Amino acid sequence: MAKSQALQTNLDVDYVVVYRFVKTDKASAIAKFEKLVEALASVGLQTEVRNGENHSVLLFLRVASEEHLFGEVYRSRVRDWIHGVRVAAPPKETREALEAEPLYEAERLRIIYQLITNPVSEGGAGITPKEGEWEDVESIFALHDHAYNKDWIKKWSTSYFLTTEDLDDIRNRLGEKIAFYFAFTQSYFTFLIFPAVFGASAWLLLGHFSPIYGIVSAIWCTVFTEWWKHQETDLGVRWSVRGVSKIEQKRKDFRHEKEVTDPVTGETIRIFPATKRLRVQALQIPFAIAAATMLGTLIATCFGIEVFISEIYNGPLKTVLVFLPTIILTVFMPILTGILTNFATQLTHAENYETQGAYEKSLTQKIFVLNVITSYLPIFLTAFVYVPFGNIIVPHLDIFSLTVRPFAENEKQLQSPKEGFSINPDRLRKQVIYFTVTAQVVNLGMELIVPYLKRKGFAKYKEFQSDREAKNGGNPPSPDANDPPEDAAFLQRVRQEAELDVYDVTTDLREMVMQFGYLSLFSVVWPLTAVSFVINDWLELRADAIKICVEMQRPTPWRADTIGPWLDSLSFLTWLGSLTTSALVYLFSNDGLGPDGHPANIKGWALLLTILLSEHAFFVFRWGIRVAISKLDSPGLQKERRDRYLVRKQYFDENLSQLEKVPKMAEKGDEITRASLEEDARQSSLHKSTPLTKFWGRQKGWKETASVGRNLIEKADFSNKTESKKEL
Amino acid sequence: MAKSQALQTNLDVDYVVVYRFVKTDKASAIAKFEKLVEALASVGLQTEVRNGENHSVLLFLRVASEEHLFGEVYRSRVRDWIHGVRVAAPPKETREALEAEPLYEAERLRIIYQLITNPVSEGGAGITPKEGEWEDVESIFALHDHAYNKDWIKKWSTSYFLTTEDLDDIRNRLGEKIAFYFAFTQSYFTFLIFPAVFGASAWLLLGHFSPIYGIVSAIWCTVFTEWWKHQETDLGVRWSVRGVSKIEQKRKDFRHEKEVTDPVTGETIRIFPATKRLRVQALQIPFAIAAATMLGTLIATCFGIEVFISEIYNGPLKTVLVFLPTIILTVFMPILTGILTNFATQLTHAENYETQGAYEKSLTQKIFVLNVITSYLPIFLTAFVYVPFGNIIVPHLDIFSLTVRPFAENEKQLQSPKEGFSINPDRLRKQVIYFTVTAQVVNLGMELIVPYLKRKGFAKYKEFQSDREAKNGGNPPSPDANDPPEDAAFLQRVRQEAELDVYDVTTDLREMVMQFGYLSLFSVVWPLTAVSFVINDWLELRADAIKICVEMQRPTPWRADTIGPWLDSLSFLTWLGSLTTSALVYLFSNDGLGPDGHPANIKGWALLLTILLSEHAFFVFRWGIRVAISKLDSPGLQKERRDRYLVRKQYFDENLSQLEKVPKMAEKGDEITRASLEEDARQSSLHKSTPLTKFWGRQKGWKETASVGRNLIEKADFSNKTESKKEL
Repeated sequence: MAKSQALQTNLDVDYVVVYRFVKTDKASAIAKFEKLVEALASVGLQTEVRNGENHSVLLFLRVASEEHLFGEVYRSRVRDWIHGVRVAAPPKETREALEAEPLYEAERLRIIYQLITNPVSEGGAGITPKEGEWEDVESIFALHDHAYNKDWIKKWSTSYFLTTEDLDDIRNRLGEKIAFYFAFTQSYFTFLIFPAVFGASAWLLLGHFSPIYGIVSAIWCTVFTEWWKHQETDLGVRWSVRGVSKIEQKRKDFRHEKEVTDPVTGETIRIFPATKRLRVQALQIPFAIAAATMLGTLIATCFGIEVFISEIYNGPLKTVLVFLPTIILTVFMPILTGILTNFATQLTHAENYETQGAYEKSLTQKIFVLNVITSYLPIFLTAFVYVPFGNIIVPHLDIFSLTVRPFAENEKQLQSPKEGFSINPDRLRKQVIYFTVTAQVVNLGMELIVPYLKRKGFAKYKEFQSDREAKNGGNPPSPDANDPPEDAAFLQRVRQEAELDVYDVTTDLREMVMQFGYLSLFSVVWPLTAVSFVINDWLELRADAIKICVEMQRPTPWRADTIGPWLDSLSFLTWLGSLTTSALVYLFSNDGLGPDGHPANIKGWALLLTILLSEHAFFVFRWGIRVAISKLDSPGLQKERRDRYLVRKQYFDENLSQLEKVPKMAEKGDEITRASLEEDARQSSLHKSTPLTKFWGRQKGWKETASVGRNLIEKADFSNKTESKKEL
Repeated sequence: MAKSQALQTNLDVDYVVVYRFVKTDKASAIAKFEKLVEALASVGLQTEVRNGENHSVLLFLRVASEEHLFGEVYRSRVRDWIHGVRVAAPPKETREALEAEPLYEAERLRIIYQLITNPVSEGGAGITPKEGEWEDVESIFALHDHAYNKDWIKKWSTSYFLTTEDLDDIRNRLGEKIAFYFAFTQSYFTFLIFPAVFGASAWLLLGHFSPIYGIVSAIWCTVFTEWWKHQETDLGVRWSVRGVSKIEQKRKDFRHEKEVTDPVTGETIRIFPATKRLRVQALQIPFAIAAATMLGTLIATCFGIEVFISEIYNGPLKTVLVFLPTIILTVFMPILTGILTNFATQLTHAENYETQGAYEKSLTQKIFVLNVITSYLPIFLTAFVYVPFGNIIVPHLDIFSLTVRPFAENEKQLQSPKEGFSINPDRLRKQVIYFTVTAQVVNLGMELIVPYLKRKGFAKYKEFQSDREAKNGGNPPSPDANDPPEDAAFLQRVRQEAELDVYDVTTDLREMVMQFGYLSLFSVVWPLTAVSFVINDWLELRADAIKICVEMQRPTPWRADTIGPWLDSLSFLTWLGSLTTSALVYLFSNDGLGPDGHPANIKGWALLLTILLSEHAFFVFRWGIRVAISKLDSPGLQKERRDRYLVRKQYFDENLSQLEKVPKMAEKGDEITRASLEEDARQSSLHKSTPLTKFWGRQKGWKETASVGRNLIEKADFSNKTESKKEL
């Protein structure tokens, strides 16, 4: 089989399990492997094993028993219906259900993955990679569809916009969770075009720190955030996943303190006391403070050094020394962030959430806080500390002279000028440009290059290792030694894919949300921000597609009906933007010179009033936008309404059909006849005549009531017509 | 039948229809009456007609066909289930459903009322009181249960607190909507005890405008608002009405512009263009401005006159003239409010909402705005205009000298002292005391006395009128002329009840919410506010019970799962309180003398910073409270969870039972035998040998895979154990 052919076919393989037995001894590795194969076979999967790289075997799986898969599909759809994701129950006959609604690829892969990983009690094989008894199962991944991937990247790289059908395509292949990321980025990209055009005009015509640009930008950010929520709903309906985030997925790592059996339902409830969790959650506050302090100190120190060197120091090597803080940041920041992220993960783990959703939300919040500090604090320091208080602080920066003392020729070079120091209003702009252009480009490059280097480096390392082992005398068999020639190319490809990283969509989402933050918070400093982002995001969308296709294992398709906790981050950044933008506009009005022509002469009350008014204008405007958007109709909402109407109608008709049988009121007592009156008298003498029977016995049937009523009305006095009849 | 006995029995009457034919001519009155009786009989109601007061007849209704009622009950329960109010579908057999879940009185009355008023297409009689062809139907009301009412009032007037069972009782009798009002007021009353105790201590120990009191009060208001939301959910589950507000009730007055038939569902949709509605809604802004201007001008004028008379004018009759503004307010305010309320109603009508819920929400919002202006503006003016700007404004109040010029003896009495005017910090406190004590007491009295006087006055008027008619020669027959003696007392009682007013629960709710506003907004001025409210509300709860029992017709029991739009008002007032309380504390710190000992020396930035910090502290705290309360468990939530679990389990079991039939994976290829290998070879030569069949054909069954895997693992190099086997 030629290499090109190996890329064309997946040989019907649904999933590949990487079983790496490097940590275990031989006997137990074999025993566990046998158990694994048996467990997988028991849920109707056909297995083939081949040699893998580096103490591993590759177990190929495909669905053998379609019946079993259908059962799983049906079970999944019933669960969806019970949780309100589907409006109607699926047809009872599974085959019929599948014909009415065929599986799409992502659904098929998701269900097979669940078949492999779900607990045995829920009908799965119970394989939990890297955990418990399955710790040797390194990963479970599907094979890339290289032909499709090639078309995908080719199509995207030659088109400006992605259509909804393109997103549908991603959803069908990679699942809703990843499709939501692409949909979000695409929406954001489309929305960016307006501020890019407006920003460019503002840059040309209005200058920096234009209040008009500030207001338009704040409005745009609010509209985008609110519109995206609407869009999410619409896509959720389009992809039939609306409400899936409400299906609570129990966390496997959840540790319960006690088990209680509900006396009413008989359900076993695992309990972890909320107070205990609260005590752990309370650690979030010291954690946030510590993180802010550590990162803040690092950033502030580098900032101080930089200001000192660039604005006070005037000795030799200034042009070189100016890079010193950047070097410090580049070295220490990733280390510190890494440590803090690790700590955040452990803290979230200790909080011991019961559901996967709660866990992810809590972790995302922590990561978001860390990111806010590292991304925005430098600009905050410049805008709200350096500019207003620069005159007071900068003269005290002498302490940083330590860092450059070895290079100074005399003391004078290290001393700040007693007078005449003026803050540099251009510093802020340069910083914003750095973060919104340079950093974005670097980031984009890193995303593509780092995994590539990692891959190459890893290959080199392996080569080196096997060389060394060969020298040491031990010469382990090459994994492809036994490959049948016709499968060799295919197996080589699979071995390669097995070594790839696992794609994590939240990293990409975070990147987009943090980018949105620059726009919302600081774009008033440099209105071309959005122009840079439009270009960057066009590339980003394509680069992410390439990353998924080439650098990463094929992701397991998960469902989602939202971008999750990042939505809250988006709202938060929009709100914060209403504060910073107004403050920046006031502080730097008069082209960066402050309202009175001097940046330090800022009136506290005017600044606070600006912020206060801006924030409340934002609240009112956001409310208005929400109301307006809630009135918008969309194909998704229409579809949902129709489905719901039809299902209700059907249920109603089904349940009420028997009510038709209830006989209509028989009309008795057609006329007041002598006979009927006699009957009345007879009835009242026969029965015990209570006030009740007497009261209700006077008029029999509605016709009698009507005729008595006619009498009463006729006897009534009709205003001016004085034809009052006195006789009864 | 003695009078006391007439109060004891309702003679099985479910509803009384008052048919008043004063506007119609005789012939059409009779025709319409006949139609009415026929329509009612057609839905299974037994009828009896009796003479009523003042050109009316009373039509007594009781359920004749229990079958028909059961059908209605079942229909209502199915609708609840479809809309998610009930978790499980009701049993298909109606009689069985009713036995499992018997009707409570309010449910029975509601369903009969719906049977009378629902459109014919939905199985009702289609009677719409005062509207369209039924404009002569003045009202439809149920009879009071006097024995129960007596017990109710007796029980309440001798107990301090109401238990949940007391509320259940109201719910069973008067329906959930009224029960929710009582539950809210009771919760509020219970919560008030803390600020009453704390306020009294603060009054004694901390003085006025204490920041500590301000913070505690703001916290309390937030906790109460958030806790009530939790309580609403709990009660909603307890009373099985959770979600009823989501069942959209179409408004009868909705005017559609066109009818569209949905191409997919065939449903007829009535459309009123949203843009047209938006154009009408836009009128809300000029309306709010106009209302604020008109009411504001009136209030500000009276305020100015009052300040002028009490603080500048020093001529004769000062003690009398000081009441002039109060008189102006008392005369003009109700007129103006009446006009504006009327206008608000018409505006809301013109907005032409499709559902009853949207209509009520919009109207409530407008009424709330009016109430905020009339209730809080006077205090706002004193606190935020008179105190900070008094020194500037008061000298210009000379214009109001016009009002007292006739009484002044010389010009000097009308002129403000050139110097030495100092604002009166006690004015604010007096005003708050007026609104939180005097006005509340007056209000409570009015609620009981006005309807009483109205009733008496009406009786007098009728007497006078019939006297005059007797003089004019026309002597209409007394309505009780034909009453059978045994029914006379009962009929007299019913005639009395027919003339009573209709109870509107939103008025009472509004009163409570506005009262809460004083506490949230201004109680820092006078910490005893809550003490006054505790006393007032204890009485209020009882007075409302008496009002419902004595002054009003028995209300038709409606369902609700919330206090509706007033909940938003509550949140709004809590938020506004965080602003006013902090501003008041800052402005009047130093015991009402301002931060620097002089009320006019206020620093703008400090005031704004106080407000800004306070507001954001409020946001953070509210978020914390929401999170904390969302974690709380409650009997209602437990019940809901259990019900949901059981229903899901049942559905799941029902739907998945057939999956059991799917056969488990047959285990083929138990051993790799020579025979099986030969079989393989034969198979591959028989079939067209594709790479696919070859790949999957190598290992037959999981046991083969396991044994091949064992081989592969055994051949692998186990780190230090250099027992690498090279042979295959």
